[in-house]
Amino acid sequence: MSKKRILLQFDTDSHASVFDAIVAMDAGIDRLLQYSNVKPEQVRDLVHGAMYTRGPQDLNRTAIFIGGSNVVHGEQLYRNAIDTMFDPFRVSVMIDCNGSNSTAAAAVLSAARHVNLEGSCALVLAATGPVGQRVAKILANEKCKVYLSSRSVERSQECVDALVAQGVASSRLAAISSNDEVWSSKALEESQMVFACGAAGVKLLTAEGLAQGKGLKVAIDLNAVPPLGIEGVGLMDKGVEREGRFDYGALGVGGLKMKIHKASVAALFETNGKTIDCQEMMGIGRDIIARETPVL
Amino acid sequence: MSKKRILLQFDTDSHASVFDAIVAMDAGIDRLLQYSNVKPEQVRDLVHGAMYTRGPQDLNRTAIFIGGSNVVHGEQLYRNAIDTMFDPFRVSVMIDCNGSNSTAAAAVLSAARHVNLEGSCALVLAATGPVGQRVAKILANEKCKVYLSSRSVERSQECVDALVAQGVASSRLAAISSNDEVWSSKALEESQMVFACGAAGVKLLTAEGLAQGKGLKVAIDLNAVPPLGIEGVGLMDKGVEREGRFDYGALGVGGLKMKIHKASVAALFETNGKTIDCQEMMGIGRDIIARETPVL
Amino acid sequence: MSKKRILLQFDTDSHASVFDAIVAMDAGIDRLLQYSNVKPEQVRDLVHGAMYTRGPQDLNRTAIFIGGSNVVHGEQLYRNAIDTMFDPFRVSVMIDCNGSNSTAAAAVLSAARHVNLEGSCALVLAATGPVGQRVAKILANEKCKVYLSSRSVERSQECVDALVAQGVASSRLAAISSNDEVWSSKALEESQMVFACGAAGVKLLTAEGLAQGKGLKVAIDLNAVPPLGIEGVGLMDKGVEREGRFDYGALGVGGLKMKIHKASVAALFETNGKTIDCQEMMGIGRDIIARETPVL
Repeated sequence: MSKKRILLQFDTDSHASVFDAIVAMDAGIDRLLQYSNVKPEQVRDLVHGAMYTRGPQDLNRTAIFIGGSNVVHGEQLYRNAIDTMFDPFRVSVMIDCNGSNSTAAAAVLSAARHVNLEGSCALVLAATGPVGQRVAKILANEKCKVYLSSRSVERSQECVDALVAQGVASSRLAAISSNDEVWSSKALEESQMVFACGAAGVKLLTAEGLAQGKGLKVAIDLNAVPPLGIEGVGLMDKGVEREGRFDYGALGVGGLKMKIHKASVAALFETNGKTIDCQEMMGIGRDIIARETPVL
Repeated sequence: MSKKRILLQFDTDSHASVFDAIVAMDAGIDRLLQYSNVKPEQVRDLVHGAMYTRGPQDLNRTAIFIGGSNVVHGEQLYRNAIDTMFDPFRVSVMIDCNGSNSTAAAAVLSAARHVNLEGSCALVLAATGPVGQRVAKILANEKCKVYLSSRSVERSQECVDALVAQGVASSRLAAISSNDEVWSSKALEESQMVFACGAAGVKLLTAEGLAQGKGLKVAIDLNAVPPLGIEGVGLMDKGVEREGRFDYGALGVGGLKMKIHKASVAALFETNGKTIDCQEMMGIGRDIIARETPVL
Repeated sequence: MSKKRILLQFDTDSHASVFDAIVAMDAGIDRLLQYSNVKPEQVRDLVHGAMYTRGPQDLNRTAIFIGGSNVVHGEQLYRNAIDTMFDPFRVSVMIDCNGSNSTAAAAVLSAARHVNLEGSCALVLAATGPVGQRVAKILANEKCKVYLSSRSVERSQECVDALVAQGVASSRLAAISSNDEVWSSKALEESQMVFACGAAGVKLLTAEGLAQGKGLKVAIDLNAVPPLGIEGVGLMDKGVEREGRFDYGALGVGGLKMKIHKASVAALFETNGKTIDCQEMMGIGRDIIARETPVL
């Protein structure tokens, strides 16, 4: 009898995410072990417990999910988990703090239904937040030019620098301020895609602003709480055509996001030693879309 | 394949109740997620995690159980959980802090085996405690007249006022003090039922006092730790006849209490959006009794 | 349908051991309830929850595992759990804090492959630690003479006194200091077995020291982190012959330790009311070895 598929949920919050737990169960795992309030320095001992209980031939039946509302702390857990392991004692690890990775992947893949990413240009509003950073990173790695916008150009630049430090090509990233009308207009005019990645209830782009984007093929608003981030884009929009654009709201992206999240958990158990963050989720999401698209 | 039945156990204590967890598993749920030390202000995020993971058609496969030793805090969690949800994103919620709801329902239903509740009269001793309050509430809603007794008539009256605020008919509730011999005697003489709902090891009614209740058909003592709450009633009594009365001790009521608890957990998954507290447990308990009673 | 086999994991650490949880699942339990940060004074309520939910006829389907890195606190939990229960409301309880019990049993059973324990002599290095104490206790109960060595003879003597208080025959225990060359030499020369039970990375016996043990049949080093505790014994050694000795390293003992741990968890559910610590694990380990040894 093969061993139970056990997922360890490491969460930085005082209560491990209910959402992540239920998705994990629906992804087909056998047993969930929830660990809340996990600190970076506690990861090593927890991971040792996962490495040394089952023989290497069974380590694909144990995996780690890292979540929680603090994305920065979650990233530390993720790095510490990976750094603790060595061959052949590796289990798979996935990170999706607050859904930021699966949301970013789903947003970019939604845009990719309408735009050939390579060589195109995108404006990412509120690019310094967890989702915005990841959208920008994925796009640049897909060979887009990306304008990263936030209220402060300094913070936008910090975000660019952080992405470059992660190996993203600096030539594809440009930091701008949303208060700088000249650059904002230029970015909008140049872009085929705009992504609003702001906090709940912050309007990032007015209808007039949106109309400036003559070349926009896609507008994606990831804010789920009114007022929405892009005026005129609906919460439920899923490729709604307006003015030559395809519009997506948070719930319109949510279905694909959920599928990516669930498929990523399932992928953890395919083999041991996998690491899954937003970049790997792009591949997982592309497979989902390919399976759903009828072959003509 | 239908989705796993997941129960979220929200508990106000630092360790979520072992008792409630085991009952839940024996009630046939598939997966339990235990959350301890839950504060009222944390309920919203936890409930959101339950609302938004599965589609509305599957929400009857997720439910919430609220427990813990602090009944007042538990009630806040219960209200906050219900207030957080809206159609069609509702999951079922049940509250049974320290077993107070299932115990109260089982006690009243035990009495109802011998007394026609409507129009009869009951004396509830230590009525200001969690179980006492619930016994009084259920009885009044069953159209009994209820004397709520505690050492202080002011506290009895506060309890009456609280029940009236919950919609119980004030005409059926009377606050008395256990130190007031005139009223205590009057209540005993008028009652067909007496319930002792006090803290462990507090004697609430002496043998002489009990003998004053000439019209008593039922005496129920819910205290499980000696000295018992009603002198002369045994811990294991389950409808033992004495002096024309049927007596019940805590363990004699316990079997039905346990069945109600378990059936209530199972009922959470029949449809989504159910709310189960002591009042709903009366119906669940009646169904259990009806199934167990042979049809002549 | 028989009830689920539920294991309660009581752990003294802020996160209940991942290792113990995974082993429990691989031992065939149905459901695990993890309780972390458990204090001795909290055990009673938790155990009550286990005692009173299922009828006595089903109590062999609920059991308690006590673990965590603090062995002294774990022992308190274990005693409190046992003291809370009474017939017929007993569930089985096992203690294996940091694996100290299963490791000690596996070490002694490894030695017993080569030495007839009764009447032989053993030197236990770092005998005051959790594993060392247990190795010494088991050996003395198997009628070995045991030298308990630590840097301070006073601490060695405290350990002897503690074992005597637990009922071990004082005539079989001798406290020595590792700094006392005369006694250390005498112990080495007299012993057929030497066990190194020290903290990670502390060398307890040099190659020259080991060579003094002319009568040694077995050398077992339970330290898994270099530098190893006995110079010349390899981490993976599993009965490697050297100079007429059979040598075992931590990983060489680890396979049997893991089997004992797993079989002990399974044994909890054979009947209710079992208590399993290092002494019971000896019997469980002997059964494992007997089953593995081909009958000629």
